[in-house]
Amino acid sequence: MTETPAPRLSIAEIMNPRSVAVIGGSEDLRKFGARVLNNTIKGGFPGRIVPVNPKRDTVFGLTAVPKVSALDEPVDVAVIAVPRALVLDQLRDCAASGVGCCVLITAGFTETGEEGARLQEEINAVARTAGMRLIGPNCLGLINTHARLIMNSSPSMELTGHEPGGIGFISQSGALMATVYNRGVCDGARFSSTVSVGNQADLELADFMEWMADDPATRVITLYVEGFKNPGRFVAAAKRCRDAGKPVLMVKAGRSEEGARVAMSHTASLAGSWRVLQAVCRDAGVIPVDDTVAMMQTAEMFSRHGHPRGDGILVMSGSGGAAAITSDLFADRGLRLAAFSAQTRTALEEIYEPVQLGNPLDIGATRAKDFVSVDDSGLSLAAADPDVSANLLVIATAPQLTKSTEILARSGKATGKPTVVVFVPGNASDEGRRIVRDMGVLGYETIDEALRVLQGWMTPTGADAEPVRPHDLPDDEPFAGLADGMVDEHRVKQVLARYGVPVTRETPAANLDEAVSAAEAIGYPVVLKGFGPDLVHKSGEGAVALNLADRAALETAWQAMTERLGARLNGCLVAEMADGIEEVILGIKHDDQFGPMVLVGLGGVLAEIIDDVVLLPAPVAPESVKALMEGLRLWPAFDGARGRPKLDVAAIADAAARLSWLAIDAGERLRELDINPLIVRASGQGAIAVDARARLES
Amino acid sequence: MTETPAPRLSIAEIMNPRSVAVIGGSEDLRKFGARVLNNTIKGGFPGRIVPVNPKRDTVFGLTAVPKVSALDEPVDVAVIAVPRALVLDQLRDCAASGVGCCVLITAGFTETGEEGARLQEEINAVARTAGMRLIGPNCLGLINTHARLIMNSSPSMELTGHEPGGIGFISQSGALMATVYNRGVCDGARFSSTVSVGNQADLELADFMEWMADDPATRVITLYVEGFKNPGRFVAAAKRCRDAGKPVLMVKAGRSEEGARVAMSHTASLAGSWRVLQAVCRDAGVIPVDDTVAMMQTAEMFSRHGHPRGDGILVMSGSGGAAAITSDLFADRGLRLAAFSAQTRTALEEIYEPVQLGNPLDIGATRAKDFVSVDDSGLSLAAADPDVSANLLVIATAPQLTKSTEILARSGKATGKPTVVVFVPGNASDEGRRIVRDMGVLGYETIDEALRVLQGWMTPTGADAEPVRPHDLPDDEPFAGLADGMVDEHRVKQVLARYGVPVTRETPAANLDEAVSAAEAIGYPVVLKGFGPDLVHKSGEGAVALNLADRAALETAWQAMTERLGARLNGCLVAEMADGIEEVILGIKHDDQFGPMVLVGLGGVLAEIIDDVVLLPAPVAPESVKALMEGLRLWPAFDGARGRPKLDVAAIADAAARLSWLAIDAGERLRELDINPLIVRASGQGAIAVDARARLES
Repeated sequence: MTETPAPRLSIAEIMNPRSVAVIGGSEDLRKFGARVLNNTIKGGFPGRIVPVNPKRDTVFGLTAVPKVSALDEPVDVAVIAVPRALVLDQLRDCAASGVGCCVLITAGFTETGEEGARLQEEINAVARTAGMRLIGPNCLGLINTHARLIMNSSPSMELTGHEPGGIGFISQSGALMATVYNRGVCDGARFSSTVSVGNQADLELADFMEWMADDPATRVITLYVEGFKNPGRFVAAAKRCRDAGKPVLMVKAGRSEEGARVAMSHTASLAGSWRVLQAVCRDAGVIPVDDTVAMMQTAEMFSRHGHPRGDGILVMSGSGGAAAITSDLFADRGLRLAAFSAQTRTALEEIYEPVQLGNPLDIGATRAKDFVSVDDSGLSLAAADPDVSANLLVIATAPQLTKSTEILARSGKATGKPTVVVFVPGNASDEGRRIVRDMGVLGYETIDEALRVLQGWMTPTGADAEPVRPHDLPDDEPFAGLADGMVDEHRVKQVLARYGVPVTRETPAANLDEAVSAAEAIGYPVVLKGFGPDLVHKSGEGAVALNLADRAALETAWQAMTERLGARLNGCLVAEMADGIEEVILGIKHDDQFGPMVLVGLGGVLAEIIDDVVLLPAPVAPESVKALMEGLRLWPAFDGARGRPKLDVAAIADAAARLSWLAIDAGERLRELDINPLIVRASGQGAIAVDARARLES
Repeated sequence: MTETPAPRLSIAEIMNPRSVAVIGGSEDLRKFGARVLNNTIKGGFPGRIVPVNPKRDTVFGLTAVPKVSALDEPVDVAVIAVPRALVLDQLRDCAASGVGCCVLITAGFTETGEEGARLQEEINAVARTAGMRLIGPNCLGLINTHARLIMNSSPSMELTGHEPGGIGFISQSGALMATVYNRGVCDGARFSSTVSVGNQADLELADFMEWMADDPATRVITLYVEGFKNPGRFVAAAKRCRDAGKPVLMVKAGRSEEGARVAMSHTASLAGSWRVLQAVCRDAGVIPVDDTVAMMQTAEMFSRHGHPRGDGILVMSGSGGAAAITSDLFADRGLRLAAFSAQTRTALEEIYEPVQLGNPLDIGATRAKDFVSVDDSGLSLAAADPDVSANLLVIATAPQLTKSTEILARSGKATGKPTVVVFVPGNASDEGRRIVRDMGVLGYETIDEALRVLQGWMTPTGADAEPVRPHDLPDDEPFAGLADGMVDEHRVKQVLARYGVPVTRETPAANLDEAVSAAEAIGYPVVLKGFGPDLVHKSGEGAVALNLADRAALETAWQAMTERLGARLNGCLVAEMADGIEEVILGIKHDDQFGPMVLVGLGGVLAEIIDDVVLLPAPVAPESVKALMEGLRLWPAFDGARGRPKLDVAAIADAAARLSWLAIDAGERLRELDINPLIVRASGQGAIAVDARARLES
């Protein structure tokens, strides 16, 4: 007999139950259970609904039972909305009677401290042993619009339309789940399923993401996250959604230190480092959004129009001023105005004054000066340009505002390309707003709102090149035999060399004679570097002598260094003098949530101040490193700025990739590793690690 | 007899006319004149309204006259809305009959090309000669809500409320003027006066800014600008508004290259460089906003609450998630959460769980767990903290949403500190929205919208330190006697030295003997620099030899340089070898609109890539330069990053200030001047100009 039998129901079955029970279902709408029951009934759920209430024969006209076990056959899903002290009994009753899944609305578990955490573990064990799944505790419930299942405790559900749509929404905050759903629906978003995961005692974010990846009704997945129960599963689930062609959008609370403090006091979650998470999201194709309203607007854009085919946007407006403001904001948001082909221009010149013809296209700039009856032929011609992937109509002013709004929106829709409308006026556009909405075209209240949606929609989410392990790597544990703590430069470089990262030729020397023979073997000029357990900032402590041109210079340097550092010196390295154009930092940092991260950045004080680095989860393909480096603010420094030679970026990317495999092989024992600097030469001439260190911790 | 007599009316009189005529006023609302007349009548203007229409005896029940000159007494303001060909006659008739100001609605003047420009000049001359003022042409008209004057051609006026308020609005786009006004009113903004200035043939932006600075009804001034007729007057008018305590907000179309193209095709305006304009705005206390909706929301905040008293903001929410999202966005927008004093904390600990107590303050985190009836005492206590300058209430969720919204908003208002509310839900908050609006509290639809308003409201607009001309400056023309074109290094440095900017000691030498005696006078080590008309990038062409330690080194360098450069060399400079820690660039660039601008930035390739500079209109006070430098992204490089010594920022600022006076004295003939580099030493040890050049153009 196993302790963890197979689950009684799959998530698909839980989200499409045949029957549900509401334990604690009363008619007192101030109570959670009553509201869940009421919302489930009002939502029109076609399956069996059972109120569980020992004090009543019927609730809202439905026959009640005192306990779930009193039913003739088990329900698929039971909602538990009773005081905390009563939860365990009810749960045991459900487990015993074959319930497939319990949704625990009740709060007061891990989020309140140790006692709650113990109780949560106990509940979890009961369910696990029975093969019964859990959602929650401390959650709000579920919605599946396609199954007409509105099994949710929020009073706002009665005010909200539940028209089926394509947005899946998983929320770690119960309260925000209902609020965001209500707002989304009012803003025109249409949902498939919505889940409040609460404390994620059993089923968690990644479970529902995986299900949504398969769920045919869900076309885009949205997440409100405070912390990850299992970061690795999140990444895997996100990649599965991407493979299914479904975009994943996420609002992560606690990006900033301030936000993290609030998020932590609110839930039991650990807020990870935002920067690492951004890198992980990029790698997994997750689009970070900073606000729930923007997330749902962007999700609806994906839901209706899928992924964009390109990044060129056509802007049309009746106001030159509004068009100019729009163009300005395009630049700020990194959006691109489509560039008309010669053919498009020729076609448009039939209609528009050539001098005023461009993108944004001014609907008033027609040759005919027939400003009152807006012609739609210009829009059709312009949108047909192959560089146009979406139409943005900025409704600002026109003598016949409603009429022109209608003509423009209809023409935009007829182009077959995604079309969105911005309304700059107030109530002067109310009729236009109604017409556009009824036409099924997305409308926004500010230019910035529309551009935020377009920016999110245009975010690249394709998979990086698959990292391929170079065939010449060793296959043993890279730091085997070394003790925990700092690993000295020479040993790190030996490991790097085995992984194919070029390092300076160098030899440790215990005395001057050894140093001289080492130098002769390497060839002058050489570098002399003292080493010892407390010599961390070598240059600052006089433990580095560069560019020693001959034996005399080496002897002088040896003398000076041994006199200066005395007993602090364990010995010296004699190394080749590496030269190049620029210094780069390569690093590994083991993140507690997401594993080893690879970092690449320019060296030096200024670069450090600007904090402009590439960060990727290991392992990485060199192509991905290079692609991200091209997005650095300091990229021109690599790419031949101001007449300098282009740097050997391929060598940097290759070293970063090899380092990433080293990190994978070393596992979590390798907490950090820095190559600082990697001296980089001109394109084709390579790069070489000049100094390096690492820290091991078991 | 003078050609330009005193104006018949002041702008205050024009904006508060006793009588108005509408030339071209008919009952056909498809026409501009009919709409102006209709809007003026419907707006309830209490003065005399005269339709001017030769074909009708009455229009809309008002007695019409065939011409303005047929009136018994002249009207203060006449609107002209007739076809272009008829404008001149009507204008002459107005001029002859003593009209104070004509508002020219008719388009087709400078904005259409040369013929239109000629006609505009003719019209202008007629008006000027008569002392009659002009608004327009190509404009929409005026609004003065306090005078119940809705003299405007937009059909949206009938839909818009005209409740008097404190926002003055001047728009260079007629169409956008009506749209922005309509939207603003619907969003809760209340206007004092609104003017569409059109082509600004006579009265322009600055005239109305000056008037609004004095107008007691106007508390904040908003501008939609495409280009400046008179940039200097704009700056002066903005400063006058600041002196009157009235914030100025501006949307400038054409910030980006794309936007500028659209703005230029739309009007006859020249789009200036956005960067220079930003510097000018900062100097003049103008707040740039990137969207008209945000501008009006921010303006209403100023109109109701004046300038902020500090920058600490209290955030209160019933949702930890919404509070965390808000905190995250605070960091992005550079806003600051108020920090509670120990006293405030102690007081709040009576009510809240200490571990959950902080800013944002979670209304659910009370000891009493009385989540349903929101208590307002926490808000009162928290808002009383001296670090709190505004309250931001984020309404996301609560079992009794409307009730808690009401209590929170009322309590917030009662604190006496500016309070704004964000509604995260959709229609679940509709009743709350109504309550908050009726309470006179500002409400927003997204967190970002509210933070955008707070960010604009918190923008510092105080005047910089008054630049004081150092008493030791020369008082003649700095480049007198020099021909146009590039000015060589030595001459520029001589001018700099006269202005008190430290430069390297140096002597031109025509032959080696002169070079040697110069070096001996200066003291070794020295630098040898060749000069000649085509030697621009000296280092790259081998015309610079650094760190020549003695006579032998100087001789060798002289030999090599003369051989290499031969006839290209006019001579060499022998200069002291300057040393320091960092290289800085100081520059002057004469902007065609705003005059000489001073630039300060770090030298080197990386700094150039990052493009992180201070830009100020000349003259500048050293304090202002230093204050702006502290805001640079690379400021840590000046301020002792990574254990480096702090640089002598006072010396940089002093040199920049002296350079700015040099630019003022040189006037527009000095197109540009670069000191590159200014070598800067550690704090207290000065800075020295090592290379410099300038370009003169008459």
